[in-house]
Amino acid sequence: MPPLLVLDPARTLVPSPQATGSAATLDIIVGLFILLLAAKVGEEVFRRLRQPGVIGELIGGLLVGPHALGIVFPGETATILSEIGVVILLFAVGLEIKTDELLQVGRPAVVTAVLGVAFPIAAGAAYALVAGEPPATAAFVGLALAATSIGITSRVLAQMGVLDRRFSRIIVGAAVIDDVLALILIGIVSGLAEGDLGVATLGLVVGALGFVVLGFVVARRARGLRREVFTWPLFTDTPLVLAFLLMLGLAILAAYIGLAAIIGAFVAGLIVAETEAQDEIEHEIKPLASIFTPFFFAVTGAQLDLAALADPKLAVAALVLAALGIATKVLAGVIGARGTGRWSALAVGVGMAPRGEVGIVVVTLGVSLGLLTPSLFSAVLVAVILTTVAAPLLLSLVIPRAAAEAEPTGPGSTGPAIPAG
Amino acid sequence: MPPLLVLDPARTLVPSPQATGSAATLDIIVGLFILLLAAKVGEEVFRRLRQPGVIGELIGGLLVGPHALGIVFPGETATILSEIGVVILLFAVGLEIKTDELLQVGRPAVVTAVLGVAFPIAAGAAYALVAGEPPATAAFVGLALAATSIGITSRVLAQMGVLDRRFSRIIVGAAVIDDVLALILIGIVSGLAEGDLGVATLGLVVGALGFVVLGFVVARRARGLRREVFTWPLFTDTPLVLAFLLMLGLAILAAYIGLAAIIGAFVAGLIVAETEAQDEIEHEIKPLASIFTPFFFAVTGAQLDLAALADPKLAVAALVLAALGIATKVLAGVIGARGTGRWSALAVGVGMAPRGEVGIVVVTLGVSLGLLTPSLFSAVLVAVILTTVAAPLLLSLVIPRAAAEAEPTGPGSTGPAIPAG
Repeated sequence: MPPLLVLDPARTLVPSPQATGSAATLDIIVGLFILLLAAKVGEEVFRRLRQPGVIGELIGGLLVGPHALGIVFPGETATILSEIGVVILLFAVGLEIKTDELLQVGRPAVVTAVLGVAFPIAAGAAYALVAGEPPATAAFVGLALAATSIGITSRVLAQMGVLDRRFSRIIVGAAVIDDVLALILIGIVSGLAEGDLGVATLGLVVGALGFVVLGFVVARRARGLRREVFTWPLFTDTPLVLAFLLMLGLAILAAYIGLAAIIGAFVAGLIVAETEAQDEIEHEIKPLASIFTPFFFAVTGAQLDLAALADPKLAVAALVLAALGIATKVLAGVIGARGTGRWSALAVGVGMAPRGEVGIVVVTLGVSLGLLTPSLFSAVLVAVILTTVAAPLLLSLVIPRAAAEAEPTGPGSTGPAIPAG
Repeated sequence: MPPLLVLDPARTLVPSPQATGSAATLDIIVGLFILLLAAKVGEEVFRRLRQPGVIGELIGGLLVGPHALGIVFPGETATILSEIGVVILLFAVGLEIKTDELLQVGRPAVVTAVLGVAFPIAAGAAYALVAGEPPATAAFVGLALAATSIGITSRVLAQMGVLDRRFSRIIVGAAVIDDVLALILIGIVSGLAEGDLGVATLGLVVGALGFVVLGFVVARRARGLRREVFTWPLFTDTPLVLAFLLMLGLAILAAYIGLAAIIGAFVAGLIVAETEAQDEIEHEIKPLASIFTPFFFAVTGAQLDLAALADPKLAVAALVLAALGIATKVLAGVIGARGTGRWSALAVGVGMAPRGEVGIVVVTLGVSLGLLTPSLFSAVLVAVILTTVAAPLLLSLVIPRAAAEAEPTGPGSTGPAIPAG
């Protein structure tokens, strides 16, 4: 890891004898402090300008990150905090959703998801084939545009107070289905590229479907489970710790299966949402979310290298792919959710646009399989990040109109509030 | 970093294409999950046996750590989470203390601190001189036994509900003074060892004293500051985020000066405790503490290598040093806090006994200065950890008696509760 900061030359004379950690530890904590501060200052500036706060967090991270001021080089710990941050974010989203509400949006969510995977793959692959790439490479360019990462969308929906609207449910449901579909396709393409398509891929498909279906069934059966399910241990007078372990455990399980970790966290949220501890855990997860989640956006922002766009060929490829990526998801939403109203359907499409860390992982995988050249890698990576950064801006334009035409499907929380422990 | 876990061989066949991070990231998160789980299971077992929960957390970490089962090798991120955990812990302690209450215990705290630094240095150095070590080495052995780390004591005091007792205030006050004294002495000895005792050491002394005094003055002036001081930004509807930044900022500042980071966090807690946001922040820091703090104890436990005690010479040296370390602190407490009652004075002494991470850092510094040989390093390190592990056990014996004889100095929290945002 590169050094972060040397603020005080005297430190090297008398090497922090009593500091509760080594100088490296201190440097890392300083880096985290600066990332959090930058994210929060960025959010504040953007909110004062009446723009989405998430963009401010992204730009805060970009500014202090390696591609701009170079004050902070997010390393292992920042990455892990960012990962736990987005896991907590999706857990909190799941916490606000009842499985009943997901079932109600089943049909539009499935159609949006299927089209939202098919269209970007077709468009991305077509573009790559036209640019003269071989079919396997073209397939991977398409795949990189297929998987939705709803971390950023969730935050925008939550901040605008529309998580209980029908279009929000469709986005969340479609994103889960979308992730399962994309996982299966990536497994198949990877298997074909490695000449090994068989038991492993089949296991992947069964595992991914099994996990989501089983999680859903467990959530249905968890309805009305008493608060004591989370408070029986002596060590805790609040249900948070067990819920946190459940969240992290399911996130890890999902990742082992090959799904995005955030899918596991979302399923954990769905399960807890049906129990009587929902209100209390929703209240207690907020302080954790307020500290962890900004790292996700700041670290994502810090990965954006705008200098790469100085190469005109690369810039054109990235912009075309980003435009295709957004347009195809919007089209999928407009068709899939057409029954919900014009602006709502548009909101669904735009909400599915960000590829985020899922797209980044697919791109990285494509390079490791030898399917993407370095220049194509940069173009697709920039395109993936552009879809992520553009989405909150587009959402802030579309959501107010969608909210005006849409009816809420139900109250955000259910049952009487349980007094805090 | 060594690999953490390979649970599923299929993962290497299909390389987690959609996981929201690389395989390394996943392994680290699995390690963190196991550490947290082990700490909580350990705490639960110990609580059911009516023993202090912290010991269970330490032993949970020890069991899954590199010196026992070898499932988890705490790396960068676990270390940082553990560090932030103890910072949050001391911030929470500061949050429950008013500066008025610290002033009331000024005299016994100062006497306990001064004696609690002088006695261990004298005893440790005498032992090392008798064992034939040169004076500079002997001085460092003494110093390693001097500095108190009250992370563990704070947790035990909080768990037993006696943080508002007079003896608890004395422990906390004495630990702060003790840390400043030990810092100054370590600066002087390091300077002498490097043949450079002058401006840097003087700067250290002035900086350390200035930080603690200034923090105290700021806390006095913060009295009655309105909640809006922490809620003016648009990004937050709770005062937590700004308070967290203040905490982390002062912890970093303290570490740059050369003080323990936890002293800075404690001062931040003192400041916030005087404001009107105290109640709300105390409420919101708890979920963060419940997730972060167990890492501190689990990581500390994971460092304990009981196999080192198989060498009889080392075992004797470690046990003698640990016994000297505890006895001298107890003596300091019994003399310094003698006006508070017999058991209370004993509780003060025992509460000052853990050296924790502060002692470990001093030992590491001694090696880097060439003053401690590897075998002496191991002996002192084991002694430092033994004082840390023994303290909660001793406290659980002494505190009930001290609580029975002591009068609380005042209510734990002040003023009307502010309704949560």
